[in-house]
Amino acid sequence: MLRLLTSVIQQNLQQQPPPPARPRLFGTASTETLLMCSTWSMLNLDLLVPTNNWGNEGVGEVTEVGHQVKSLKPGDWVIPKDAGLGTWRTAAVFSEDDLISVPNDIPLLAAATLGVNPCTAYRMLADFENLQAGDTVIQNAANSGVGQAVIQIAAARGISTINVVRDRPEFTELSDRLMAIGATHVIKEETLRKPEMKELFKTCPRPKLALNGVGGKSATELLRHLQVEGTMVTYGGMAKQPVTVPVSALIFKNLKVRGFWVTQWKRTQSYDGCAFRNMLDDLCSLIKQKKLTAPVCNKVHIGEYHKALCAAVQPFTSAKNVLIM
Amino acid sequence: MLRLLTSVIQQNLQQQPPPPARPRLFGTASTETLLMCSTWSMLNLDLLVPTNNWGNEGVGEVTEVGHQVKSLKPGDWVIPKDAGLGTWRTAAVFSEDDLISVPNDIPLLAAATLGVNPCTAYRMLADFENLQAGDTVIQNAANSGVGQAVIQIAAARGISTINVVRDRPEFTELSDRLMAIGATHVIKEETLRKPEMKELFKTCPRPKLALNGVGGKSATELLRHLQVEGTMVTYGGMAKQPVTVPVSALIFKNLKVRGFWVTQWKRTQSYDGCAFRNMLDDLCSLIKQKKLTAPVCNKVHIGEYHKALCAAVQPFTSAKNVLIM
Repeated sequence: MLRLLTSVIQQNLQQQPPPPARPRLFGTASTETLLMCSTWSMLNLDLLVPTNNWGNEGVGEVTEVGHQVKSLKPGDWVIPKDAGLGTWRTAAVFSEDDLISVPNDIPLLAAATLGVNPCTAYRMLADFENLQAGDTVIQNAANSGVGQAVIQIAAARGISTINVVRDRPEFTELSDRLMAIGATHVIKEETLRKPEMKELFKTCPRPKLALNGVGGKSATELLRHLQVEGTMVTYGGMAKQPVTVPVSALIFKNLKVRGFWVTQWKRTQSYDGCAFRNMLDDLCSLIKQKKLTAPVCNKVHIGEYHKALCAAVQPFTSAKNVLIM
Repeated sequence: MLRLLTSVIQQNLQQQPPPPARPRLFGTASTETLLMCSTWSMLNLDLLVPTNNWGNEGVGEVTEVGHQVKSLKPGDWVIPKDAGLGTWRTAAVFSEDDLISVPNDIPLLAAATLGVNPCTAYRMLADFENLQAGDTVIQNAANSGVGQAVIQIAAARGISTINVVRDRPEFTELSDRLMAIGATHVIKEETLRKPEMKELFKTCPRPKLALNGVGGKSATELLRHLQVEGTMVTYGGMAKQPVTVPVSALIFKNLKVRGFWVTQWKRTQSYDGCAFRNMLDDLCSLIKQKKLTAPVCNKVHIGEYHKALCAAVQPFTSAKNVLIM
C-alpha cells in the first residue's frame, strides 16, 4: 500500500505557444507531450478528467507491505520503475517489482523529479561518449528539466557545458540561474551562428557530445560545433522538425547521430536492474552533496490540477509543475 | 620502380546531369567528386591537364626494388595504400609503405578497382551491425561501384539485399544484371513509398543496415524501412541534399545514423595495417572464387583521357571508366 506524495507535470518545451483554438495539453514529460499532442489537441482543457494511469513521475511512501515483500518496508520512499504507472492519485497498491526505492532523507521535490529527467541526463552523459574532466558538452533546451540536470551532473564531474536557450525577455536572469547551478557558458540560439563561437572555443575544447531536445535548425547548429567523431544524442523534438544532417558531417567528420528514450532504457535494463539501481544511487549521492537539485517547481494541490495543466502549456515556462497530494 | 597498368575513373553518381555551362568534372571516386566539384566547376573540360597527383585508384606492377625493400619484389602487383598517390601515369617511384600488394593472378580490372569501392562495401558490412546469414541490408545507388560490391559480398555471406535504383529507360536490364550478381530484390526509388514494400517484407526480415550513397529523400526513405535499433551508414551524397532524420526514428526506434569514408579508415588503420591486409585477402579470395567481380568497365587508353572524363559525367552511367596505360 502506497501513499503518493507528489506527481510531476513537466514544463512544456514547445518552441511556439499553441494556437488558442487548439490548446496542446499535458506535459508530464516532454516525450509524453510528443506522444499525446495528436490525441489531445482537439480536447477542451476544461473537459479533461484524469484517469488512474495518468502520470509517469512522482514519489510515494510505502505504508504497508505484504509478507512476501523483501526489498521494501513501511516508511520507504519509492518511485515508479516504468512509465504509465499512474501517479495522479493519493494511494495505490502496486507490485514490489513496479517500484524502486530512493532515500527518504532527500528533498521531496528532488525525489519527485528524479525518475525521468536526471536519469535521461545521466545516461546521455554516460552511454555515448567517454567523457573526462575537461571535456565539453553542448546542449539546447538547456533550461529544461533534462538540461538543468545535465548542467549539474556535468559540473560535478568537471565537464564544461555550453548551454543554448531561446532568446527571451528575462534572458539575463535565466542565464544567471543556469550559471549558478554550474553552467560554463549560456548562449542564445542565434549566437550559434556568430563568430563569438570562435572566441568561446578559445576557453574550452570543442564538444565531444551534443544533446538535442529541440530538433530542426537548432540541432543542425549543434552538430556544426561538434569535434570530429563526436556524437549528437536527440532526446526530444519540441520544434516539431526533423534533425537535418549534412552529408559531409557524416562522411568527413564521422559524426554519430543517435537517439535516447529513458523509458526504453529502463525496460531494456529491467532484466537485472543493477544499472538502474546504481544510477539512482549515484544521483542521490549528488543530491545529498547538494550538487544536484530539483529544477524550479511550482507546487499545486492535486485538487487544482487544471491550474498546473494551464501553467504547463505556457510558452517559455522554466518551472516544473508538481502536484502535491 | 613501378609500371602503372591502369587508373580508374568511377562513374558519376550525380542525380541530375550538370548544367552545360558549368561542367562538373572528374570522378575518380564519388567522394572525390564531392570534394572537387566546387574547385573545378568553372573549368572548361578541354583545358583540363592532369597533374601527377591525379588518380586515387589503379594497379601497378613492381619492376625494380631497392635492396632494403622486404615486402615487395619485381612482378608483384600493388595498389595505393592511401588516396592522392597519383595513378594517372605510366611509371613512378614510390616508398614501399605507400603500396600494398594484391595477387597478380586475379583479373586486371578487379585489381584496378579493388582499393576503394569493394573496401568501402566490405567495411560498411563489417563495422556497423553484427550481420548474420539471413539478415537484410537495404541500399540506394545499388548500381554504383560500391553498390555492386555490397550485393556480391553480402550474397557470398547469405545476407539478403534490397537494392534501390532510380527509374530509367533500361530498368529491367539493370535489374537483371544486379540480380545476376546476387541481388535479392531490385526496386525503384518510388517503390520505397508504396505498399509493395509490405509484401517484400514477407519474404525477408526488415534490414538491420541501410547504406546511403545519395542523401535527401532517398536516405529518409531507407531509414523508414530499418528495423528498430538499425543503422544507416552514409558514404556518399550525390543528391547534394542533407540526410533528414525524423526525431521519432532516433528516440523511439533508436536508429543510429553514421558515416563512412574509406580514405579516413585506411589512415586510421595505418599504424599496423593488419586490418587492411586481412580485408584485401578476404576480398581477393572472393574474387578468385568468382563471387566478387569488377563492375562493368570501359577501358580507355590514357592518351584519350578526355573521352573517359566526358563519359564519367554523363547521367545514369553504370560503367566505370578505367584508363589503360
